[in-house]
Formats: sequence, structure tokens, C-alpha cells
Amino acid sequence: MTVSQETLRAALADVVAIPVTPFAEDGSVDQDTYRALLRRLLDSGVRTLTPNGNTGEFYALTPQERRSVAESTIEEAAGRAAVLVGVGYDVPTAVAAARHARDAGADMVMVHQPVHPYVAAGGWVDYHRAIAEAVPELGVVPYVRNAALAGGHLAVLGEACPNVLGVKYAVPDAARFAAFARDAGLERFVWVAGLAEPYAPSYFSAGATGFTSGLVNVAPEISLAMIEALRSGDYPAAMGVWERIRRFEELRAAESSANNVSVVKEALAVLGLCRRDVRSPSRLLDAAERAEVAAVVKGWGTAGGWCA
Amino acid sequence: MTVSQETLRAALADVVAIPVTPFAEDGSVDQDTYRALLRRLLDSGVRTLTPNGNTGEFYALTPQERRSVAESTIEEAAGRAAVLVGVGYDVPTAVAAARHARDAGADMVMVHQPVHPYVAAGGWVDYHRAIAEAVPELGVVPYVRNAALAGGHLAVLGEACPNVLGVKYAVPDAARFAAFARDAGLERFVWVAGLAEPYAPSYFSAGATGFTSGLVNVAPEISLAMIEALRSGDYPAAMGVWERIRRFEELRAAESSANNVSVVKEALAVLGLCRRDVRSPSRLLDAAERAEVAAVVKGWGTAGGWCA
Repeated sequence: MTVSQETLRAALADVVAIPVTPFAEDGSVDQDTYRALLRRLLDSGVRTLTPNGNTGEFYALTPQERRSVAESTIEEAAGRAAVLVGVGYDVPTAVAAARHARDAGADMVMVHQPVHPYVAAGGWVDYHRAIAEAVPELGVVPYVRNAALAGGHLAVLGEACPNVLGVKYAVPDAARFAAFARDAGLERFVWVAGLAEPYAPSYFSAGATGFTSGLVNVAPEISLAMIEALRSGDYPAAMGVWERIRRFEELRAAESSANNVSVVKEALAVLGLCRRDVRSPSRLLDAAERAEVAAVVKGWGTAGGWCA
Repeated sequence: MTVSQETLRAALADVVAIPVTPFAEDGSVDQDTYRALLRRLLDSGVRTLTPNGNTGEFYALTPQERRSVAESTIEEAAGRAAVLVGVGYDVPTAVAAARHARDAGADMVMVHQPVHPYVAAGGWVDYHRAIAEAVPELGVVPYVRNAALAGGHLAVLGEACPNVLGVKYAVPDAARFAAFARDAGLERFVWVAGLAEPYAPSYFSAGATGFTSGLVNVAPEISLAMIEALRSGDYPAAMGVWERIRRFEELRAAESSANNVSVVKEALAVLGLCRRDVRSPSRLLDAAERAEVAAVVKGWGTAGGWCA
């Protein structure tokens, strides 16, 4: 690794931003706007970026688009932020993406949960090990959304692969998270609350030190206020932030998260920062939903305007 | 389409075999063994083949492997069976795979459910429509595993795309299936029970006329006996078959289907038909599980031996 493991661990114990991937009118990735959105995050104090995450519509991007989004992020970060590139799919595809990220100068990779429908616990270990061993120079962060996975399996992976530094855990149950983290090794890994601000306080109460965020794309000052409160152990202040963003996150979570990214992009469109377009199988909001998002964002008083 | 829609609809109202993808000792796809397994299916009377389905470890294959598996299947079928190629991932990747299947001579494509985590119902329609419109010459069969999708959305897709001929529905609830099929159009689509033999009788009772099968790889005579019984309305006979295969399918379904394919390949290995290897995140069975699979297969008296 070009930077120390301690530096990378610190980068995970922070707001881990998952940038959106804006699209141009012709449907292609709008690289200029993407870079402008990244600069806005960096200028706001965000220090950890995850291109090709779910908020970046990873599963709607082509392989070439995923590579170019990773490259743009690394270039814009330019050492101001740690970059954690999302990789996934079959093992050879994930390994190729991880090596590409390494060669482009990334610090870490975040491994999306396997999309394969038949996941054995031992096979889960094999899958992540194959990827982690292909890029020993990089930090590796598995993304766990499967409530059935036991912490002991992650412990086995961590024993085999010293570069597995942190875990993005995303099961909506803080007690299960607490048990999983202890069974895997609370100190061995950095624990990132993978369900963003709504679960960050409960996860921090159980040992998480970072959280992922899609909302940060819209209002970085809100995400940073939450982590500042959590770091200082001020749970009432963190819950004050929670209450401010509750409705926004409820809109994102509704109907099995159907509009998870659509809501974020709508808010960015309201602020004049990018087009609202998402790719299928996501879809634009209807008029009532759009009005509600606009009202929420207006209430925050977030600075918008074109930031190129 | 090179053959009529009626011919394709008839092919779906049958045992829709999902072939396994055997691997060689070096981990690559063993094409010779794959073709031998297909010939065994064809010689047994199987008339519908779905390469790149979940039993074929679709999500563990590289893009090039998926193409070569599709090509081999079409060559071996050689008009003796309809070929329904599994496609998926982001829209451009799925469209490219569907066009490749068309150019290689496939009859239909089966569209895996979107792996994207944020699926809006309207976006689900958009996703499938983009693929179906790219290959108007082919029959298109969406694979629905999402219990939240309403039949009305499929009706919209069918209205827009006459080549969406059938649906592989795979929610473990025959009443929900019954409602979905009626809301979408019971006669408009051919209904394929997507959870194989265990759910075939209950789905047929509600209007399904075909079922998918992974077990057919091991014992085609058993799958064919079940569809014969169901076609003649002899539910007690179908349930007799159900009872014979119950334990085998329970082993496949255990632990969220962790060993779904591993059990099938273990059975094929017992019969001397292919190696037992699966790719991560699936895994080989342990010794006790292997012994149980061997006992089940022995009890069936299925003909094995090398069939090249």
C-alpha cells in the first residue's frame, strides 16, 4: 500500500461518501458534472469517497463506465481523500476491477455482496479471499448485507487476508451488528455502518466508527455534523441531525428502497447540481414525490448553485 | 423469429431444463463434458434448454464463458430443443448478450431478475422493455423472484412487447402466483413454475403449464414423469414424484439455497457424469452431505456412466 494501514483505517472511521453518477441528456455518464460534484464534497471536508457504490448506480453501469468513474474519482481526490472503489460480479471480473483500481491509484476496494443466489458461508470466504489476495497492496472492505452470515466467517477471512481492513455492515438490526462485530473481531476491523445516517447512531453505540452516506451528496454539512456528534459521544446531538433528515431518508427507503438514488438525484436537481435522471430499473419520482423532496431540501437551507 | 410464437410457447409449457456448467480440473468450463450432459438430456426427451441460468452458475461465469456456453448449447440442440439463453446485469450488457444469443441461433432469452438493489416497478418495466425491444426476433421470458412486483406491471410490459411470451415466476407462494398471473394475463403469457419440481404441482393447480428444473440434470426421467402426470391432471401421481425427490430438493434448499448447485453436481459426480466442482460463493458439500446425496441418487436407480 502506498499509505499506511492506519491511514486507511482512519479513512473508514469517517463519513464514507458514496457519490452519485450523474448522467447527461444523452444518457451517458456526465464526467464534468461528476467531477464538479466530487469537488463540492472535497471542499466541504469529505475525506473518503466510494465510486461505484450502490448510490453510484453500480449495477446500471457498463464495465467501461465503472472504470472511467473510478479513474475520475482518483484524479479528483488527488490525495485529498481516500478512494475506495466498488467492485463486484464474478471473481475474474471483480479481480480485474480491483487491479484496475490499484493501477489507477486507489487506496482500497469495497467488495459488493455477491449477486450469486447460492452463497455458502465458506464460499463467501473463498470469494472475498480470491479478490483480496489479488490486490495485497490495497485495503479491502467487504459489504455485508446478508443477515445469515456469521461473524466467525469474517474472522476466517481476516486471518487469511491482512489487507481486509474494514467492513461495511448493512443489516437493519444494531443488535445483530453488535454480535457480528464481536464474533468477527471488534478491534481487528474498522466497522462502517452501511445503512447510512438512519442507523449510524445505533451502530455507533455498538462499536461502529464510520458510516456510509448517500445524503452527503446533497448536504455534506449534515453528514459531517452527524459524525462530529457521534465522535464526541453526543447522541442527543446526533439524533437532532437524525430528526432533520428523517423524512428524506424515509422517502429513500420506501417500497424496498425503490427510489433510493432517485430521491438523492432529485435533491441535487433541485439545487441545480445535476440532472435528476437515473437508469432502469430505478425511475424518476412522480410529481408529488418531487415536490416533497424539494420542500425537504429547501428546509435544510443547503447551498446549491452550479459549482463547476 | 425463425419459428412461430406457438412453437416457442409450447417449448415453455414443458420441463425447462437449466443445465449445470461443469468445470475441468483447472477450473475452466469443461465444454466436452457440458456437451455430453446436454446430449444425455436431449436423448432422454428434454426439449427446452436454458444455458446461463442459476443452476448453470450464471453469476460465477465471465462474459466470454457465458457466450461460449450459449453457443455450445445452441449447437448441441441443433433443432432438437428450444434454447432459452439467460441474460442479465446492466442494460447494455444484457442487450449485447441477447443479440449474441440471437446471432448464434437461440430461440428465446430468459432475463434474470435485475441485480440492482433499487428497483422501482416502472423501472422494472423499462429494464425489460429495453432488452425485449433489442431482440424482437426472439421470445423473451422475465424471471420474477420479487414478491413485491404486481401483475399489472407485467401486463404493461406485455402490451408494449409482443415478444414477451412467458414468465418464470419464482415466489414460494402459489396463491401469490395465482393472483399475479391473473393480474398480468393468464392467457397472454405462458406461466413457468420457476421454483422447479417442489412447487410445480401447486403452481400447475393455479395455471402454470411448465416448470424449470435443475434436478433434470441428474434424473431427466423423474422430471419428465412429473410433467406427464401434471399434464394429465393426475396430481396424486405428481405428488408421488414429489415424495421421491423431496429429500434431494430439501438439501438444495437448505440454508437459503447455499448448496443448490453443489447438490446437483455432487449427484452428477456420483453418477460419473461430471466433476463436483462449483465456483465461489458456492462450495463443495461436506462428507456427510455427500453421503446423503449418494444415497438418494442410488435410491432413484438413475442410469449414470460416462455418456460422451
